[in-house]
Amino acid sequence: MQHRFSKRMDNVPRSFIREILKVAADPAVISFAGGLPNPELFPVEAVSRATQAVLATAGPDSLQYSTTEGMPALREFIASRYRDKKGLDVSPEDIVITTGSQQCLDLIGKIFLDPGDRVVFERPGYLGAIQAFAMYEPEMVSVGLEADGPDLDELAAVLPGSKLFYAVPNFQNPSGLSYSEAKRAAVAGMLAGGPVFVEDDPYGELRFRGEPQRPMFGREGLTGILLGSFSKVAAPGLRLGWVAAPHEIREQIVTAKQAADLHTSSFTQAVLMRYLEDNDIDAHIALIRERYGRQCESMLEAALRHFPEEAVLTEPEGGMFLWCTLPPAISVMELFECAVEQKVAFVPGHPFHVDGGGNNTMRLNFSNVDEATIDEGMRRLGRAMKRFLRRVC
Amino acid sequence: MQHRFSKRMDNVPRSFIREILKVAADPAVISFAGGLPNPELFPVEAVSRATQAVLATAGPDSLQYSTTEGMPALREFIASRYRDKKGLDVSPEDIVITTGSQQCLDLIGKIFLDPGDRVVFERPGYLGAIQAFAMYEPEMVSVGLEADGPDLDELAAVLPGSKLFYAVPNFQNPSGLSYSEAKRAAVAGMLAGGPVFVEDDPYGELRFRGEPQRPMFGREGLTGILLGSFSKVAAPGLRLGWVAAPHEIREQIVTAKQAADLHTSSFTQAVLMRYLEDNDIDAHIALIRERYGRQCESMLEAALRHFPEEAVLTEPEGGMFLWCTLPPAISVMELFECAVEQKVAFVPGHPFHVDGGGNNTMRLNFSNVDEATIDEGMRRLGRAMKRFLRRVC
Repeated sequence: MQHRFSKRMDNVPRSFIREILKVAADPAVISFAGGLPNPELFPVEAVSRATQAVLATAGPDSLQYSTTEGMPALREFIASRYRDKKGLDVSPEDIVITTGSQQCLDLIGKIFLDPGDRVVFERPGYLGAIQAFAMYEPEMVSVGLEADGPDLDELAAVLPGSKLFYAVPNFQNPSGLSYSEAKRAAVAGMLAGGPVFVEDDPYGELRFRGEPQRPMFGREGLTGILLGSFSKVAAPGLRLGWVAAPHEIREQIVTAKQAADLHTSSFTQAVLMRYLEDNDIDAHIALIRERYGRQCESMLEAALRHFPEEAVLTEPEGGMFLWCTLPPAISVMELFECAVEQKVAFVPGHPFHVDGGGNNTMRLNFSNVDEATIDEGMRRLGRAMKRFLRRVC
Repeated sequence: MQHRFSKRMDNVPRSFIREILKVAADPAVISFAGGLPNPELFPVEAVSRATQAVLATAGPDSLQYSTTEGMPALREFIASRYRDKKGLDVSPEDIVITTGSQQCLDLIGKIFLDPGDRVVFERPGYLGAIQAFAMYEPEMVSVGLEADGPDLDELAAVLPGSKLFYAVPNFQNPSGLSYSEAKRAAVAGMLAGGPVFVEDDPYGELRFRGEPQRPMFGREGLTGILLGSFSKVAAPGLRLGWVAAPHEIREQIVTAKQAADLHTSSFTQAVLMRYLEDNDIDAHIALIRERYGRQCESMLEAALRHFPEEAVLTEPEGGMFLWCTLPPAISVMELFECAVEQKVAFVPGHPFHVDGGGNNTMRLNFSNVDEATIDEGMRRLGRAMKRFLRRVC
């Protein structure tokens, strides 16, 4: 049976992470490969109480079709949080609720990209965005990340004529790196009047060190789209994200979203809104921050104990990931085989590079492994690295 | 501020229904315009109990990220129901859970359609499918619906070289019409070895008259994709639909879905699955059928009492809609203004026609209006028609 699929399907990188997660599903394997929040911190009982309350007070409405833009109270909650915490001039009308922030990426690709349009990613870049945008057959280029943000010379070279610049300025997936205020200001200046800046911020609330930075969204001259998510601060299984965007862009997003899934679940929106009304989300986020800070610290300390000195790690100020770079000659894809023998898994860095490279890099997740297990996993991974560096595995 | 949106966004019909629903939101207006299930029949208390049980027994798992394909138990439920009720040879692996069946339409458009590829719709056709497929810039053509299914001569003329034929063979939205077994067999024969048949079946369980028909899916020689939904038999606010498709197509759907929203809510899937385990869904569906049958009958009888004899209605055997045709010279768009003056709303038929026409037609929804209100609304609409036919409004 031969089907003629669309050309765009030839263009999509198969998610190597999906394959890796299959390996990592072996309970004997310690996995730093996933990107899961720590489920011990999910507010299970509070969600249960919120659901009871929603169904008792607004049962049929919470189960009926609803508007494409999303629940007004939830949009107001998000907007007022931006106003109060970030000083952003955002109103509820500026927000559209989406089925996870992954959906924002698909919708942005859909409304902006014709085949051949150029999109600038970070190097390494977020794989979910690469997959979403790849569907619309763009030219995909990248700018390298330095410790404080993108390489400005590289950025200056690729921005002219580009349609979108997609970035994760806080505790990036996969690198754990963040943009300094100096880099933010410089990037905003370079983008003024130019490509649309797609600012993905799923981890922004998960800062466990250093000082919060001002978002790029809303800066003078910048056409920005700001993406957020409840996946990391409440629970990913609800599939609730959002996008803040200027009117003209938002109208297109709503049109595209209506065609994509009509609207995001009214039930999960109502449950989350009730949860937010009845609970102190800041206190809950403080717990997550504290825990992830300890998990990250455990991983960094374990690396000092167990990794060969050739391995260089980023030191994230928040989020869920750190990034490890080995000497250029090392093939991390081959190291992966060696690591699986040692019963430990990670994600090789190559798939995060839209224009090649990264063969000597890897992503390590610390949020979904407890501290004792982190130490044991890093010991195994360090052993795999040492054996591999000496070519004995 | 000038943004260069993608060409596809020029191609998407703005949903006229959205505009109409704003008019219909006036509480003084009786609305036959929406497409909402009757919320009195939503299983609010049973969903509440199911949620409690899920969170008590599998709390963190039900709130965590999960697989793109969907919850195995739910896929098994759907597959076994197809086997038991329809005699279809479907296994759980053949099913992918989607964020409402609207998402299936978007994913199918995405994996199959390059610009200019031809898609065959019914005339009138489902607006949600027209909007979803239009995003992929196809050539859109239609075949007229007769009382027992598509006009076979028209179909024979457009099928060669087409990529997809999209149809709703049971109680179609918007017409309420169904395919006879003779038409099903004929269409399956015409499609053998040819275009993919996209069989959308959100209403199939809602039959209140006549005998169930065998699906097209699984018939000899046909490459079929079968779409289903829990929106009309449980609750639309959960946003749970599914697609059954052959392996090669399903793989592409999963790749596209992962890029579109990673996966459908694990929480709503777990809640629905528990609801299905603990409740008799067939007894619940019987209640819906019985109620919608009475609502449909009320609308047909009210039409006899109140409509001018020039108005011709379909007589659906199930579903949520019927279709009304007025003399060719009548502009239903103009009648709409007259109807709103009489405080009654409906959806003009023109937007359901991908290649023009239908200016003298309208869709009437009977599932979301109680029987006394149906009579009053039909009285108002009949008066508007009579005044309009005599050009006095």
